[in-house]
Parts: sequence; structure tokens; C-alpha cells
Amino acid sequence: MDLNADLGEGFGRWELTDDDALLRIVTSANVACGFHAGDPVTLMRVCETAADAGVSIGAQVSYRDLAGFGRREMEVPPLELAAEVAYQIGALRVFAEAAGSAVRYVKPHGALYHRAGRDGVQARAVVEGALLAGVGVLLCQTGTELEAAAKAAGVRVIGECFADRGYLPSGRLVPRGMPGALLGHEAAVAQALDLAEHGRVSAVGGERIPVAAESICVHGDGAGAVAVAQAIRSALDKQGIKVEAFA
Amino acid sequence: MDLNADLGEGFGRWELTDDDALLRIVTSANVACGFHAGDPVTLMRVCETAADAGVSIGAQVSYRDLAGFGRREMEVPPLELAAEVAYQIGALRVFAEAAGSAVRYVKPHGALYHRAGRDGVQARAVVEGALLAGVGVLLCQTGTELEAAAKAAGVRVIGECFADRGYLPSGRLVPRGMPGALLGHEAAVAQALDLAEHGRVSAVGGERIPVAAESICVHGDGAGAVAVAQAIRSALDKQGIKVEAFA
Amino acid sequence: MDLNADLGEGFGRWELTDDDALLRIVTSANVACGFHAGDPVTLMRVCETAADAGVSIGAQVSYRDLAGFGRREMEVPPLELAAEVAYQIGALRVFAEAAGSAVRYVKPHGALYHRAGRDGVQARAVVEGALLAGVGVLLCQTGTELEAAAKAAGVRVIGECFADRGYLPSGRLVPRGMPGALLGHEAAVAQALDLAEHGRVSAVGGERIPVAAESICVHGDGAGAVAVAQAIRSALDKQGIKVEAFA
Amino acid sequence: MDLNADLGEGFGRWELTDDDALLRIVTSANVACGFHAGDPVTLMRVCETAADAGVSIGAQVSYRDLAGFGRREMEVPPLELAAEVAYQIGALRVFAEAAGSAVRYVKPHGALYHRAGRDGVQARAVVEGALLAGVGVLLCQTGTELEAAAKAAGVRVIGECFADRGYLPSGRLVPRGMPGALLGHEAAVAQALDLAEHGRVSAVGGERIPVAAESICVHGDGAGAVAVAQAIRSALDKQGIKVEAFA
Repeated sequence: MDLNADLGEGFGRWELTDDDALLRIVTSANVACGFHAGDPVTLMRVCETAADAGVSIGAQVSYRDLAGFGRREMEVPPLELAAEVAYQIGALRVFAEAAGSAVRYVKPHGALYHRAGRDGVQARAVVEGALLAGVGVLLCQTGTELEAAAKAAGVRVIGECFADRGYLPSGRLVPRGMPGALLGHEAAVAQALDLAEHGRVSAVGGERIPVAAESICVHGDGAGAVAVAQAIRSALDKQGIKVEAFA
Repeated sequence: MDLNADLGEGFGRWELTDDDALLRIVTSANVACGFHAGDPVTLMRVCETAADAGVSIGAQVSYRDLAGFGRREMEVPPLELAAEVAYQIGALRVFAEAAGSAVRYVKPHGALYHRAGRDGVQARAVVEGALLAGVGVLLCQTGTELEAAAKAAGVRVIGECFADRGYLPSGRLVPRGMPGALLGHEAAVAQALDLAEHGRVSAVGGERIPVAAESICVHGDGAGAVAVAQAIRSALDKQGIKVEAFA
Repeated sequence: MDLNADLGEGFGRWELTDDDALLRIVTSANVACGFHAGDPVTLMRVCETAADAGVSIGAQVSYRDLAGFGRREMEVPPLELAAEVAYQIGALRVFAEAAGSAVRYVKPHGALYHRAGRDGVQARAVVEGALLAGVGVLLCQTGTELEAAAKAAGVRVIGECFADRGYLPSGRLVPRGMPGALLGHEAAVAQALDLAEHGRVSAVGGERIPVAAESICVHGDGAGAVAVAQAIRSALDKQGIKVEAFA
Repeated sequence: MDLNADLGEGFGRWELTDDDALLRIVTSANVACGFHAGDPVTLMRVCETAADAGVSIGAQVSYRDLAGFGRREMEVPPLELAAEVAYQIGALRVFAEAAGSAVRYVKPHGALYHRAGRDGVQARAVVEGALLAGVGVLLCQTGTELEAAAKAAGVRVIGECFADRGYLPSGRLVPRGMPGALLGHEAAVAQALDLAEHGRVSAVGGERIPVAAESICVHGDGAGAVAVAQAIRSALDKQGIKVEAFA
């Protein structure tokens, strides 16, 4: 099982994610590429630390929206979106390669993740951008337009689940703002274990549903993020589950 | 002799350089990388057209300054500057490689060109950024701190002269705003021929001075830019001078 | 009848609208405020010229999107949108007041104009932003959510029609990209006259439909923009129609 | 004696200064205006809280440099700089006025503060920008080009000293990075008291030197900022020194 988190989400003077701490916990780092966060020095440092720690590097691509942290959906024409995705991957790749590593996968950030998950046009543009930049692996939820677009283009999909988000019986996430959307510390650890050991989660009604995940996403920002991530990692280790980046 | 020009200097809705026309004239394209100009779609298109036309692609790296078009000198700490340079090269490289070409050299833009020409700290940061991104050729004026920094780091320097700028007897450019700083259409053609045939220019007092140049820079923006560039190219062709990108 | 156009849509090195020429033709200037276009020096100059020419100044507010020229719809939360609108108006007002004029109205730009025209949430946010900045007049199409939100808040609405856009029998614009969406030079002049003299346009099927407009919008960008605007102004003048800013 | 601090220095998702806490301590708030920090929602909230708390609002104007947090000196031509300063003040003023307050003064931020302190050209541009925006008070160190430019233009100067910075016998600050540049918690409190009670500081050699200050600057960012500011405020209150905004 792989553990991934969003990293490098500072910008210049501003810090957000505790990159050094998280890079001692996760096995895949979704590194911000400068469009929603991530200045070049941060990219460089995160790539160096990730490479030293043997953590896999992915490009966390976003709409161009520093002011909104990439959380505002945008109507970007497909050609523009593909080019913006490729631009970001290329920028990150320099630092990954300089550190002796590589950009192994692409994961869209924030509003782009959600929009491309349900909009085939933007999904195909993201996949095209990844291919333009020579990256053939996409990290996303299964059952989405992103997965469909990736598969149609011959791009490998690594399915992910969220340790600290509640699920509906349909397998979809409980929308933010609704009861059960966010799990507490202990529930998140339990859900991560359930995912890793049995490939399932307990949906809000209690029903156990199967979910396909090769990677578990833990959150990198917010108070307590490092503690939760560490608790999940420790629990997986204790159960003897091999935690490692996907091949 | 190589002919280079700055290209891809639009941004989104705004256009500046007639990229298609210039790519039929020059042999090296200094492509804007997004920090002073150059949106991702423009980068993609210019790289495609350049690759099709057999024009060599270089990264025209800049301070991060869209509002000032990279013409405002900035006190950027060296590590930041190196990382910003590498970031830009990486972004462009994706499009150069997708078009079947490569980023063959780096040329700083505007205020960075001038500052790094006389400031060893910024010069070394530019060279370090180029090396981080795996590019080992720098296009700049000889006799500058940039040249010195490049040579000290084992980076190849391609010396360039400007067809339409006046020179002082010292070999330096006549500062903008002073008499003789800018040459007219015909004088620019004559100077380009003198450069290509004899490796010299006529300085403002009339004195002929030798200048080392493997490339002649023609301007891509401004009214008449394409006509001047075309006239220079035609004159060189007519004299039987082989116009081609440096190897 | 008022004539309005979008002005000040350059940014730093990039120019787009021929502001000086248009300010000799129109009676209301929708001045870009820096979020989709419009650097501070341009704002200052346009306001000075507009004040000298007796042209009314309005704030052409936009999503924060220089790369997309404000043409990409964005999901901006209402509080953020209201604050962004107010910020832009305040910035412009400094220059309007320094020139001895004022910001007399607000007109949303591009994607924000269209989105707020059909989305009550964003419409109300735009109106709230205008009120925060103390501006109580909105320039927009009638029959839209923008008009409704303005009226509900006690903000005066100046209805506008487009000289060079085709209309459907419903009174809505023919969508861009469809036949009849854009009128040629002569048809635009004829439509402007029909609007000013009879308060009507000829819809795509030939049917004459009434439209409520106190202002006619002419386009400021694109080749021939000044010529079309001048032809419309001359035709209105020749017919003895008083062309002046709304009170 | 007035106490001032830099506030509103977050941007979108990123937070930096604990604005609410500082607004219970200081009497003048230097509010970021969007060029180095400060999104419109933050400006609005800080102005509302400041107005409620009776804290005076000033515009903390900066170079346009989010990536560098306004800490990188820039060669901005004077007209551009004046217009950029005015733009920022206007944007902030909307929120100050909507909260029932006003922008009472201007204080340049970071690199602009230091550059304009020693460069008459940029100093005059800052003053011109303030006047364009109708603000006639400048908060800065005395003995600087900023003070000179302000006085020459009839702009009132409020002299400030720094509680936590060491001074040279010349009255200038010990440069950052040198021994004695930054004072610890207790020394900062003692220096603030000495300033307020006796109009003097103890320079690095121990010599007591007079300094003219109507305002003491406390830092708003960094760990412990609120605690130091609170300690200074409490010490001044305890000594019976009236802490209030300048008139």
C-alpha cells in the first residue's frame, strides 16, 4: 500500500505543509508546481528531500490560481488546460531530475481534481497534458471521468482513497459540509487499516463497501496533519502491511 | 553565422511578436518561458513551429515580472534566482521535447540580461539554473560577467552582437536614450553584414572595432521588426554567408 | 443615447485597445481595473484622458485572471467576489478622482458579465461589491440576473445593447460561434441607428424586437474597432441623435 | 506614543499575521494592500476589526512581488511606482471607508521601505503616489530620503523607531545579519520604554542616542510576535504612557 500527501504548498514567505515531517511518513509526494502554490525554491527542496528519503515524486497540477489556492473551478479551454498541465510538470521535473529522481505520476489538485473527476473534457485535457510531458501514470479516484480518460489514452491509473473522509454507500465521498464528511483522528486510522487490509471502507450507514485503492491519501495541511499521518503509518507498519510507493 | 530573436512574447490575449514570420527568418528562437511573457499555449505553438522549421530553441529566462515585462532589475537572492531560471527552462523543455526538439541554450531576458552581464552573483545564479536544468550553452555578450560565470562553470558561451544597436569604441553598447543607441533599418543591415563578414562593427566615432560573435540578435518586437530581420537575412544570404544555428 | 466601450485593456508592455482614439468617440469608458488587464499607469492615463474629454468613467471589474483575460468562468465564493469587485473599483477610483472625475458605474467584464447575467449568487456579489465601494449604478443587459440583483439592492441599472452582435427573437444574443453572432461594419451601424431611433433591433429571422437600452456598446479591441465605433458615432450624430453619457 | 504593526499579510489560503490579536494591542495598523500580501477579503476583515477597535488604518504599500513578499528591491520607473502606490491605497481605502474609517497614512513595506529610505527618486515616487491617492501622512524613519521627499511635498511625517532592532551610534539600524541587529524579548520591551519615556535608545556600544519617534513599530510576523507586542504594550500602559494613534 502506498501513502500519498500534498506537499510543497507554501509560496515564498508563506508556509503551509510541514514537508520535512511528511516526507518521513509518506511514500508518494504530490508536489505543488507553482500554479496554486509552490515556489521554485520549495520545489527544489522538496524534491531533494524526497529523493533522499526514497519518496516517489508526483506533479500536483492545478488551475492557475494562487489567490484561490486552486480551489475555484475554472472554465479553461481544453488546449489551454493541457498546456498548463504540461508546463507545470516540466517545471517540477527539472528539480526531480536534478535530485536524481523523476516525476513518476500526475495528481490534479483541488478544484481541478473534482472538476476533472466528473467532466470528461477537462479530464481528457489533464491526461493530454500528462502525456505531452511524458508522464504515463495518474493518481486519482476510480470510477471517475479522470480514470476513464486515462484508461482510454493508455495511461495507468493508481486508485486512491482518503483516510479521513467519509464514504457514501455508493462509494462516493460524503460532500464537505455534510455530517460524516470528515473523520476524526482514530476513525481515520481505522479506515486506513480497513482499506489496506480488506480493500473496503464502512460507509456512513455502517455498510461495508469495497473500494479499489493502491494508495491512501493523507492530508498534509491543517493542524494535526502530521500526527494523523504518522498514526496511520504506524498502524499500517504495526499490522505488517508493507507501505511503499507503487512501482 | 546564427540569427537569433526573442519570440513567444505574448501572454494570453496579448500578442507582441510575430512568431510565425520570425521563425521563417531566424535560426535560433529565444522563447519566453512565462515569467515576463509566454503563456503555455504560446510556448507549445512556438516550439512546434520552430521544430518544423528547423529553428533551434533556447530558453529566454527572466525575472518573475509580468507587469514590468522583465525590464525592472530585481534583487533576487542567488538560490531563488537559480531555481527560478531552472523552473522556466523545465517548463519550456516539455514543449520543445514534445515537438521533437530540445532546449539547446539559455539567454536571459531584459533586465536580467543586463544585470547578470555586470553582476557576478546573479551571473553565477543564472549559470547554476541552466546547469540544474541540464542546459550547457549560454547565449550572451562576450566580455561580461555572464560569460565569465559560464566559462568558470564549463558552460559553453555563444557570443552575440546586436544588428540594430550602436557600439562604443570600448565594444560596449551605446546606452539607450543616447544618440546613436539605435540604428535605422539600413544601418542595421550594414552592421549585420560587417559582423558576419569581418567580425567587426563601426563604433559611434567611426572607428572599426572587432567583436566576437557567433550569433546576431535581431529584435522581434516593435513596428518593422519583421522587415528589418528579413532584410538582414536576405543580405546575409545574398553575400553567400551561411546562416545556420550554432552546432 | 450613450456609447460605451472597454478601454485600458493593455498590461505593462502589452497594448490592446486604442484608448486615445476611442475616448474621442465614446461617452462612457469601461476602464479595466487590473484583474484581467489594466496596469496602474494605464488606469491613470485613461482616466486623465477621459476626464479631459468629458467621457464618463466606469469600473470594468473582472475575475482575477490575467492569463485568461477574464474570459474563463470561475467559481468564486460570493464574499470573495464582492471583495474582489470592491478592490478593483477602489483602485480605479483613485485615478478617476485624481483626474477630477469619478467612477460613475460598474460593468463586469467577460466571463463575469455572462456568468453574473444568469447566476443570481454571483450577480448579488457583484452588486454588493459595487455598493461596498459606494457605486450605485450598474451597466448591463436588461432581463438578466444582474439587473434583478441590482434592482433588488436599489442600484440603478443602465441597460445596454451591442451594436455588432446579432439578436435572437427572444431578445438574447446569438451565441458566439453561431451564424449571425457577429455583425459586419455596415450592419452594426444600422443596428445602432435602429436602437437609438426606435429602441429595437432586427433579430436573426428578420423580426423586429424592442430592446431597452440607454447605452450602446461598441467593441474596443480587434482590427477595425475604432473605425466601426467612429462610423456608429458619425451616423448617430448625422441623424441628430444626442450622444451623451447617462446622467 | 503610537504603536504600529504590519497586518493583513496573509494571501488566500496562507496566513501569516495574527491580525485579531495584534489589533487588540497596537494603535496603528499597516495593512497590506495586495502587492506583497493581502487578498481583498483579508483587507476587508482587517479594516472592519481595526475600525471596531479604534485602530488607525494605514496603507502598507509594496513593490508588486507576491513571490518575494516585497523583499526584493526593484528598479521601478518613478511614474510606474507612483501609480502602483496610488492603486494600492485606493484598493485599501474602499474597505477602510466601508468600515467607517479611512486610510490615514502610508507606510512602504520591506524592500521599498529600505530603498526609498536612501533613494530620492523612489522616495519622491512613493510620496507622489500617496498624494495622488489623497493621503498626506507618511510613516517612516526620520533622517531618510523618504522623510525629505515627504517634507518637500508638504506631506506630514510620523517618525518611527523599532522596538526590537539594534541601533548604531549614528542612529541607523544595525544591519540584519550583524551582531546586535535583533533584540530579544526583554531588550525590546526596555528599548520601547526608553523610546517612549526619554526619546532615546542605547546604541550597540552602550551610548545613549536621541531618536525622534512618534510611533514604535512592533513586528507582526514570526513566532512570539504577539507576545512581544503585548509585553511592550503592557509595559507602556504600566508606566502610565498614553498609547494612542497619532492625530
